[in-house]
Amino acid sequence: MTDFTATRALFDLPDGIIYLDGNSLGPTVHGTSAALARVVEREWGSDLIRAWNTAGWMDLPRMLGGRIAPLIGAKPDTVMLGDTLSLKVYQALAAALDIVPDRRVVLSDTGNFPNDLYMASGLLRLKGADYHLRVVDPDAVADALTDDVAVLMLTEVDYRTGRKHDMAVLTRRAQARGIATVWDLAHSAGALPVDVSGCDVDFAVGCTYKYLNGGPGAPAFIYAAPRHQEGLQPALSGWLGHEAPFDFSPVYRPGAGVDRLRVGTPGILAMRSLEHALSVWDVVSLGDVRTRSIALMEQFIKAVEESCPDLSLASPRDPAQRGSQVSFRHPQGYAIMQALISAGVIGDFRAPDIIRFGFTPLYLDSSDVAEAARRLATIMSGQLWDREAYKTRAAVT
Amino acid sequence: MTDFTATRALFDLPDGIIYLDGNSLGPTVHGTSAALARVVEREWGSDLIRAWNTAGWMDLPRMLGGRIAPLIGAKPDTVMLGDTLSLKVYQALAAALDIVPDRRVVLSDTGNFPNDLYMASGLLRLKGADYHLRVVDPDAVADALTDDVAVLMLTEVDYRTGRKHDMAVLTRRAQARGIATVWDLAHSAGALPVDVSGCDVDFAVGCTYKYLNGGPGAPAFIYAAPRHQEGLQPALSGWLGHEAPFDFSPVYRPGAGVDRLRVGTPGILAMRSLEHALSVWDVVSLGDVRTRSIALMEQFIKAVEESCPDLSLASPRDPAQRGSQVSFRHPQGYAIMQALISAGVIGDFRAPDIIRFGFTPLYLDSSDVAEAARRLATIMSGQLWDREAYKTRAAVT
Repeated sequence: MTDFTATRALFDLPDGIIYLDGNSLGPTVHGTSAALARVVEREWGSDLIRAWNTAGWMDLPRMLGGRIAPLIGAKPDTVMLGDTLSLKVYQALAAALDIVPDRRVVLSDTGNFPNDLYMASGLLRLKGADYHLRVVDPDAVADALTDDVAVLMLTEVDYRTGRKHDMAVLTRRAQARGIATVWDLAHSAGALPVDVSGCDVDFAVGCTYKYLNGGPGAPAFIYAAPRHQEGLQPALSGWLGHEAPFDFSPVYRPGAGVDRLRVGTPGILAMRSLEHALSVWDVVSLGDVRTRSIALMEQFIKAVEESCPDLSLASPRDPAQRGSQVSFRHPQGYAIMQALISAGVIGDFRAPDIIRFGFTPLYLDSSDVAEAARRLATIMSGQLWDREAYKTRAAVT
Repeated sequence: MTDFTATRALFDLPDGIIYLDGNSLGPTVHGTSAALARVVEREWGSDLIRAWNTAGWMDLPRMLGGRIAPLIGAKPDTVMLGDTLSLKVYQALAAALDIVPDRRVVLSDTGNFPNDLYMASGLLRLKGADYHLRVVDPDAVADALTDDVAVLMLTEVDYRTGRKHDMAVLTRRAQARGIATVWDLAHSAGALPVDVSGCDVDFAVGCTYKYLNGGPGAPAFIYAAPRHQEGLQPALSGWLGHEAPFDFSPVYRPGAGVDRLRVGTPGILAMRSLEHALSVWDVVSLGDVRTRSIALMEQFIKAVEESCPDLSLASPRDPAQRGSQVSFRHPQGYAIMQALISAGVIGDFRAPDIIRFGFTPLYLDSSDVAEAARRLATIMSGQLWDREAYKTRAAVT
């Protein structure tokens, strides 16, 4: 049984703040500065260029992939770290399209993070005018799995509402139609149990700065099912994905397995920060995290619905159909969230009218949830938000 | 006049080491750990998600672009930081091909870093079977600028020999034939004066972990000439290059100018490390760096040629045709370099037979150069290297 009092002590959180935005940027794991000082002084500073070997820098992307694999139900040697989620979406989609070379449609939904649609558009433009992106409502995805679709590209958990797709069912249906799948786990990894292997998905991608607490702009990950690895011709064919990067051959030859999904020189500072943050998972069971995060969400929904009748639940009411966040709608959502942040409860706002709260028992307990709901009720009951502020919007990820 | 005694004091170098590999990975600028501790504790730790605004994280890629611009002769608002050099090559080449839509050939040379050729191959494969890469000898580039070439893609300074292309002449000749240019400044930026604006190049890219000392895997940069910015449709169309990322529109609309060359969420730890390292350039003139680096190289060549007759110079003898490195050839180059590293002089080896030494007066002086040549001479005169070691090769970038 995970000891959530112990996990809370692993995080550095500012006094007086209730942090319900770990679904945007996870907080700092205690000891991160010291971990970075070690890289700078004992690795980079002392060993200089030699640290690529002596400190194991060159192997970090694969090693960290091995640490993330069990969190998403992936087998060893199927996950690689690096770059940003945008680029991993691009890599995965390009590889998925290669599997189904005779079709030209990428299917996605309006619940996908827009960036995934943007990256797909850029890729499809390069592929040629006969390729295109088809975007349907989340509820319409299952029926849109037609025989002209090459790839189904979805984010499991909707960034606005927290609605969770059924990955097993949609993957199975897609595959029955000869459609390859790319799942974005940005709001899943570290938030709830994921089973890419059991669901038999083709490719998955995700970021590590949300529920995995890797730090601002921490590297992304990409999963490729074992059956696809050896045939994969990477679109982003960078030298560190080469079979023998230091042969400096003029011709690209892909490396073994997921090594070929490496691109350029990895950012070591970010990788070390992530490595430190992942140590939290040594003492945590994802099943326990899920059980407790559902309890926290249910507590929050109940308290808010009782005390804030003007807020309407934007998330699915059934916790099984929801990720680890709860969203409410209000036409003045932006101003309400600003007032709440001023009152020490940090969530965030997503246009046009959603206020969003992320829950993780790693550093939140039921007293935090009760207090957050109380402060929100105070703001709502006194209409203590600035109606004028609604006219502008902040830029936060 | 740059005070190179003062600049040397800005770097943390291990005792007893003479570091001639800043062309692979620049050393640590003093205070980097403290700069990172500030990000972790005072920005990420205290402000959490709000730090994207309060700490200016969101503007870092553009701000750092503004710091690098004068080092490569670029005008303000023409340089953007992010990702890795591999990806910036990809972005720049894709944009350059769009400028010349009626041609299908990318011209490069055998002196280019293989990774640039690999990334180009991946891109051209997506573009279609009619696109291809033509690779000629460095001396043959000028004559290969034929009317079927869309883009000339070169690295200014050869990573093995240090041979330097004439960027002004080749760009002018290319443009006279309607060919767009992409210059890789990996071994130029921070090593010697560069003038992308004066040479009227179309696109340039570079890395910041060599002569700019940003740290292992520090972010790359991309330059786009002002005339190309507004028409540029990014191949890697990520959300932070969108005109209004936080509108979460389903459709990508490129941001203003070089903002559209942003892709995903920037790695803040790496950007802050780079920002700290760039402070060195506040007290340095690139012209002085070049003058002094040539003096150091000339001293080294003279000393090595006098004392090591078995080593043959692989770099151009004329310093005007050379970057900031000196290379020698020897069939047992790998073993010789290993012995030299054991003796405290760090350079590197490039297959099959090149030993390579980078020079920068920021932290090297003539006594270092004299001592490095002396240690090399001791190894060569006593044949103190391990002939067996030649059979294996180390993996260092």
